[in-house]
Amino acid sequence: MKSPHRVTIIGGGFAGLNCAQSLANDDRFSVTLIDQQNHHLFQPLLYQVATASLSAVDIARSLRAVLGKAQNVSVILDKVTDIACDKNEIITEHGSHSYDSLVIATGARTSYFGKDEWAKHTYGLKNLEDSRQIRHQVLNALERAERCDDIEEQKRLMSVAIIGGGPTGVELAGAFSDLVRRALKTDYRRIDLKDFRIVLIQSGERILKSFSEDHSAYTLERLQELGVEVILGPRVDEVKEGYLHLNDGQEIQAETLIWAAGVGASPITECLECPRDRGGRIEVEPSLAVPGHPNIFAAGDLVSLTDPDGKTVPGLAPAAMQMGKHVAKVLKEDLRLQKTRYADRYLTLRPAYRYKDKGIMAIIGKNAAVAQTGKMKLKGFPAWLAWLFIHLAFLIGFRNKLAVLLSWAFSYLFDKPAARVFSICKEDAKGEPNSGAK
Amino acid sequence: MKSPHRVTIIGGGFAGLNCAQSLANDDRFSVTLIDQQNHHLFQPLLYQVATASLSAVDIARSLRAVLGKAQNVSVILDKVTDIACDKNEIITEHGSHSYDSLVIATGARTSYFGKDEWAKHTYGLKNLEDSRQIRHQVLNALERAERCDDIEEQKRLMSVAIIGGGPTGVELAGAFSDLVRRALKTDYRRIDLKDFRIVLIQSGERILKSFSEDHSAYTLERLQELGVEVILGPRVDEVKEGYLHLNDGQEIQAETLIWAAGVGASPITECLECPRDRGGRIEVEPSLAVPGHPNIFAAGDLVSLTDPDGKTVPGLAPAAMQMGKHVAKVLKEDLRLQKTRYADRYLTLRPAYRYKDKGIMAIIGKNAAVAQTGKMKLKGFPAWLAWLFIHLAFLIGFRNKLAVLLSWAFSYLFDKPAARVFSICKEDAKGEPNSGAK
Repeated sequence: MKSPHRVTIIGGGFAGLNCAQSLANDDRFSVTLIDQQNHHLFQPLLYQVATASLSAVDIARSLRAVLGKAQNVSVILDKVTDIACDKNEIITEHGSHSYDSLVIATGARTSYFGKDEWAKHTYGLKNLEDSRQIRHQVLNALERAERCDDIEEQKRLMSVAIIGGGPTGVELAGAFSDLVRRALKTDYRRIDLKDFRIVLIQSGERILKSFSEDHSAYTLERLQELGVEVILGPRVDEVKEGYLHLNDGQEIQAETLIWAAGVGASPITECLECPRDRGGRIEVEPSLAVPGHPNIFAAGDLVSLTDPDGKTVPGLAPAAMQMGKHVAKVLKEDLRLQKTRYADRYLTLRPAYRYKDKGIMAIIGKNAAVAQTGKMKLKGFPAWLAWLFIHLAFLIGFRNKLAVLLSWAFSYLFDKPAARVFSICKEDAKGEPNSGAK
Repeated sequence: MKSPHRVTIIGGGFAGLNCAQSLANDDRFSVTLIDQQNHHLFQPLLYQVATASLSAVDIARSLRAVLGKAQNVSVILDKVTDIACDKNEIITEHGSHSYDSLVIATGARTSYFGKDEWAKHTYGLKNLEDSRQIRHQVLNALERAERCDDIEEQKRLMSVAIIGGGPTGVELAGAFSDLVRRALKTDYRRIDLKDFRIVLIQSGERILKSFSEDHSAYTLERLQELGVEVILGPRVDEVKEGYLHLNDGQEIQAETLIWAAGVGASPITECLECPRDRGGRIEVEPSLAVPGHPNIFAAGDLVSLTDPDGKTVPGLAPAAMQMGKHVAKVLKEDLRLQKTRYADRYLTLRPAYRYKDKGIMAIIGKNAAVAQTGKMKLKGFPAWLAWLFIHLAFLIGFRNKLAVLLSWAFSYLFDKPAARVFSICKEDAKGEPNSGAK
């Protein structure tokens, strides 16, 4: 028997995992999935971990647990540092791996558009550690405010500024409002959480600019009702510790600064010679192959593509899932064609990826969301129900679904967030006497 | 109206929380509870967080959430650094607080009996951060073993040694066996989890020495069936990174070393002039007052006491809860007596604390536990059921109970642990390109 075709997938997000799952239990392939983390993360709910509604493990699932039963799939926890495409090899921190075909699906990372020095004063929201840090930061700032006697300092501690009015920024702002106005309202004695300030800054004319104008206006109104200060127009031009300066002269003092203004492709794409857009995304061929590298594919948020129907493929989970599956389809088709009379020109016969638009949606708060798919537009309670239903349906693992459903039901009925807990670690409390661990 | 009696409680564990709850909504008292963490922790289940069965938030509950509705109780997140008992004041990292009565309930910490240098090579298990670290360490060691080509190194990575054969050691050993032999068994491709080595070291003649000999023997047998190597007799006399030396000459190479051999009183007790036992525990008066300090009480694991019935009060959750309530009772009784003709000798009339023995229990694995209360002794399935029931009953918060029940049901039915997830943080992966947070 011919030895199986070795496929290495970098990244266990929506694209990489769907690709691996599509190749699972197909003996013609031997699949290696490499990720820096041991889990697949359901990023659309990450903001709920940051705002203490969900626990981290609710939205993450061990990659080995998901793929453990497919004997032709191996999972490796490692970090890819380089791609030696002349040798069909990837280099990792702990070794190297040969491949016949390579799938790059490392997704996006927080991007500061050239202002990388802003990273150290703001929190991004791309992985579990980010969300843990934001939760810790906000809850700890409230503890400090409760202890504090200086009114100005208290005000600063009780402020969160979110830069970027896309879905992540909107969802974070709404969830912070829920947290401080409803969930924690009886918790403190010296501070009044009604004074908690949530600022959302969007440089354009409206928030949620990928949505309709009507939806943007509705979202703005709902956020303002929730006590979120929305600043439309000016652009952030200076970031310091706990301080923002906007280009219309406004200054904002806030202990917690969250950067939700943009993402760029993961830096591993720079290891390849290929055309890239301004955000570093690979301008792939219609089949998702990387130009000049017929056995290397890209899928997910690091792809820049306008499909044959003229649709620009967005950086959304449904698109990433579709692309992951499409790459698996191309790989299977390649193998099939290589056994036919088209073997010498199978590359030209690769199917093109077409984006199936599942719509877009964003949640604002209790009973409030916006959603649009095709010509259908929903807002308010129906959109909110649709949002809950779709996010539960796509969350991986029955147990995770049940845990999240339970948490949401509790939050809805009793206004009690599950995860109001943070842990003061070694790094936070130096010289902590109550710990004997290394 | 007279201003309320100011009670400051240090520590939100079983003793401190029960004391605060007993004084909650009693207007004669103004209670301040100070803790270094923002949560009450259900320590009896901590080993399940370490072994990836439960999520950290399942067994922790925000102190503010528990006490938020009692308007006479304030919670402060701070660390007490000194007690100025001449001024009735405690000093914290961030300020100071005056009190009329003080309750010290800071519990115990991992103790190395003078070998403090061993702390940096072993993990203790006293707080959420400890359990998070153990989980991370063990799961990450498996990942490293899966990547590793050196057989000797692989063996070392796939070894856990637990020092101390009390309930914590036994429960950890059984849970590690469950994790590697059942839950993760299909997860890896290159390593065989049957080779995973779990060593439990107990210097005495038997494990669980606070239980009957029959129970010790039963537990030993069950652990051996689960593939745990139990070493009875020798004492650890040298600890290095990933290495143990025993005083009979044996050497153990194990990537993960866990210290479950002993606890001592939390160091804050050293701020007081008072009699202490060898473990640093305060030798309190029968009323739980600290000798020489009539307005300072101690409760919980940092107390050394033989009660009027001749029972030595053990360092267990039920005793801590009882002591916390007893201190509240004494405080109320003091106030009452001060208004009567006994006002000048109320101190001599304080009620003595009597330990109500609720029994002891330890879980070994699926369907196996030992329990004894009074003359009743249970082992095997009935003890296991009793263990589950009692731990669920005492866990604080309906939501936590439900979440833990759900996790246990899943583990029992499908052998799937909930929390097989760890996060590679900044500290673990220096130069990590995928993160933009500070």
